Amino acid sequence: MSKTVEFWFDFSSPYGYVASLWMDEFAAETGATVVWRPFLIGIVFKHSGSQPMLNFPLKGDYARRDMVRAARRLGKDLKLPETFPFSSVAASRAVYALEGDPAASQAVAKALYTAAYEQGQDISDPANVAAIATAAGHDVAERLAAPEVKQRLKTVTDEAVERGIFGSPFFIADGEPFWGNEKRDDMRAWLENGGW
Amino acid sequence: MSKTVEFWFDFSSPYGYVASLWMDEFAAETGATVVWRPFLIGIVFKHSGSQPMLNFPLKGDYARRDMVRAARRLGKDLKLPETFPFSSVAASRAVYALEGDPAASQAVAKALYTAAYEQGQDISDPANVAAIATAAGHDVAERLAAPEVKQRLKTVTDEAVERGIFGSPFFIADGEPFWGNEKRDDMRAWLENGGW
Repeated sequence: MSKTVEFWFDFSSPYGYVASLWMDEFAAETGATVVWRPFLIGIVFKHSGSQPMLNFPLKGDYARRDMVRAARRLGKDLKLPETFPFSSVAASRAVYALEGDPAASQAVAKALYTAAYEQGQDISDPANVAAIATAAGHDVAERLAAPEVKQRLKTVTDEAVERGIFGSPFFIADGEPFWGNEKRDDMRAWLENGGW
Repeated sequence: MSKTVEFWFDFSSPYGYVASLWMDEFAAETGATVVWRPFLIGIVFKHSGSQPMLNFPLKGDYARRDMVRAARRLGKDLKLPETFPFSSVAASRAVYALEGDPAASQAVAKALYTAAYEQGQDISDPANVAAIATAAGHDVAERLAAPEVKQRLKTVTDEAVERGIFGSPFFIADGEPFWGNEKRDDMRAWLENGGW
């Protein structure tokens, strides 16, 4: 039985970054194939009438502390980039530009997340995105504006809306939905036992 | 070094119920003293401009599924009572009526949560609350309307507002805030290692 996890995230989501830190280890532990699916959560929020957690007065303060703490537990020093939230269109397109090659697209996704949340880089800028991808060994500069890449991101985001994916990170593990960075342990148990 | 966890919850919070299911085991695992602090989250929501998760279109559907799944992992069949959400004033007062005796107040809190989420009972009704407490071996009928008990619940709820406690369950573990039923593992690591 092959196990599959869809890992839905927005590059502008710090908790998505935190989840990206443990995703490879999770895949190794569970034997699951993980499909990385960046999408535009701003579009989803328009449909759901929701907002980023950071916008709420008390919850936002808590989240700022909690996300840094969650990254620190994994040995990383999370810092929000100067411009935040930012457009994740260019970064997401870079991943879909390489979609035929999961290893390459995941390597670029990780490099982009690292650039944004560890190095404070502006990954809303297509030129920066292309440079980060090149440094990770993959050339996406020309494909970033390709019509099929633009369309692919739209299609995937529409799919997120249709499937009720309302936050980031969001996982579909063998068909079962899990929301949030804290669901790692639940999701592992679910995959190992085929539910409960 | 004595470890202390404040366990803040609203009886009208199904995730608070789920947390109550693991709280004793958590105390035993960590050696922490757990202080059960029911409060009125409706008052907090008025201050924070927030709402119960169940009120949001997509998130609400997910939460209904997730809370049942979380309880099932702990061997319980969570069902929302017919009237939901409900006033948790009477149930909360019952706990503070017994505050001088932590074992008694926790036993009554558990009995009330069980009545609401496993047996579908209406714990907004003071007569029901008193009957459930009596069945758990503790008489609270006369104390439910005592001025000092009413005042205690107000004071505790004000404290929740002042301290930025915006959800249920919410934990303060040796001074560190954690929000949500999923924080059990983080909180255990925090207490065991004195942070990270």
